[in-house]
Amino acid sequence: MILTVTDNEKLAIGLDYGGKNIKAGLMARDGCILTEHQSATGAELSYQAVVEKLVLAIRELLVGNESRVIGVGIGSPGLIDLEGTTIFTSPNFLYWKDQPLKKDLQKSIDLPIFINNDVNMLAIGEHRFGAARGCRNFICLALGTGVGGAIFVDGELYRGATGTAGELGHMTINFDGPICKCGNRGDLESYIGADYLVKRASKKIRGCPELTPKIIAEMAYQGDRDAAEVMAETGRYLGVACASFINIFNPEKIIIGGGIAQSGDILFRAIQDEVGERAYTQLVKNVEIIPAQLGNRAGLMGAAATVFESIRG
Amino acid sequence: MILTVTDNEKLAIGLDYGGKNIKAGLMARDGCILTEHQSATGAELSYQAVVEKLVLAIRELLVGNESRVIGVGIGSPGLIDLEGTTIFTSPNFLYWKDQPLKKDLQKSIDLPIFINNDVNMLAIGEHRFGAARGCRNFICLALGTGVGGAIFVDGELYRGATGTAGELGHMTINFDGPICKCGNRGDLESYIGADYLVKRASKKIRGCPELTPKIIAEMAYQGDRDAAEVMAETGRYLGVACASFINIFNPEKIIIGGGIAQSGDILFRAIQDEVGERAYTQLVKNVEIIPAQLGNRAGLMGAAATVFESIRG
Repeated sequence: MILTVTDNEKLAIGLDYGGKNIKAGLMARDGCILTEHQSATGAELSYQAVVEKLVLAIRELLVGNESRVIGVGIGSPGLIDLEGTTIFTSPNFLYWKDQPLKKDLQKSIDLPIFINNDVNMLAIGEHRFGAARGCRNFICLALGTGVGGAIFVDGELYRGATGTAGELGHMTINFDGPICKCGNRGDLESYIGADYLVKRASKKIRGCPELTPKIIAEMAYQGDRDAAEVMAETGRYLGVACASFINIFNPEKIIIGGGIAQSGDILFRAIQDEVGERAYTQLVKNVEIIPAQLGNRAGLMGAAATVFESIRG
Repeated sequence: MILTVTDNEKLAIGLDYGGKNIKAGLMARDGCILTEHQSATGAELSYQAVVEKLVLAIRELLVGNESRVIGVGIGSPGLIDLEGTTIFTSPNFLYWKDQPLKKDLQKSIDLPIFINNDVNMLAIGEHRFGAARGCRNFICLALGTGVGGAIFVDGELYRGATGTAGELGHMTINFDGPICKCGNRGDLESYIGADYLVKRASKKIRGCPELTPKIIAEMAYQGDRDAAEVMAETGRYLGVACASFINIFNPEKIIIGGGIAQSGDILFRAIQDEVGERAYTQLVKNVEIIPAQLGNRAGLMGAAATVFESIRG
């Protein structure tokens, strides 16, 4: 969909939703965020209820800015078609199957809507405004409930044959490893996805009633030795995967986002050590492995940037 | 290097060399091969001696065709820079380090020379004339002494940040697995590279004095149960890797070349079974896993095609 827009004062809505939260913002072309919105997704509700919640978030940001907003970009978890119309499946909404999200939103929202995978939107955000500015070939990993991925090739997001490329968390790192929710065995997510990480940690760290990846990372940062060992182990698993990504992609950067990526040096040192043991030296010396910069705004910023770039003005 | 050539009768020399053999051919733009050459590389000799052998192969094809040959394309094993000037390292020539191959050949050959990784040239050959015709997003695996790889994105070879992308054989499939020549542990090559494959097979197959991957594949094809089990096991390792490639790349095709890829259904059935267990169903239904079509000519055909496409006429 190509419209002609000439007004520099135009705004885009970027929205990023997962199993728990909807995060959205009203963004100018230069990445400046004017207003933000956060609400609960209600993943336990029906598909229609989630659609209604997305519509309400968009409407809240639209009020008073109707004449300036040119479109809505949405980062969604799951496998999505190339055209951004349909969510085939989503790990956070197990009962969804081939949901025509764009059509259903368009019933209530009379603006151009652009939907892409949430980690793809995060990578676009980091590329336009964050840790990947100026990079042509890089990959992103997003560590959360699951482990998401995105691939940039020659300055563009790589989508694959049908739009679902970049499931980097579902690369096998040990073919005899634990079973992952996706059905694979021993993939990266089955070692470092939130549930699996907490399960590993709970064997080592006693006396903490409610462990989460963020709490474990925080404990490690504060000097707790058991938590630090869990984070280092997580880094080694990530390092195994990053070494493979380096040998496969010869990227300029590997950008790691998500709560635990902000936990300081322990994680990144362990990644780097493992990569040094495993990947081609010739390739390791050309790659930087670094944390994402935009925190939990990366997805909505990438989504809003997609609106500006899809509607040429 | 861009020259202007208008004569349809022009020819290119394609050359593909490995640790054992030099294969070369004189090719027309349409893929028709007029003459072929084969000789021993002499990997045990000095770098200068190998250069001399490459020069002799090129000269042999040039004799009598000097006015028609517009350039030379070369597929070389190893990590090569984006510009195709330098072989950083090569698994078949362990004593090579940052060899300025293009400059050294150019001292004796006064024609444009284009050098790329041998599996990249193979993939270009299969894309222009073989199993990947018309494909935009696919990957190639070449099973030989090592396990090589190449990646096509949106109809173009993907080179990565410094030209060395596509080392698909060095993706880890079991982080506790055997040590590979490259220094990694448990990568695909450490399970199915020729030496490792023969070592596995020799534990199962007794009474055969000299096992090679080709002999094992042939025995399996003829109905030997132990050899068939070795090939099926090889297929399962390949299937683990292919499932990861499918989740990562969402490709249209995975093309598998090299001697054992011609061994019939046993290998491909095992690959497909393992992929079905591991990769996203949504992606599996969109991908074909098939053998390469051009046999051991793919590399030289891709190399010669590169000459025609780099020299616009």
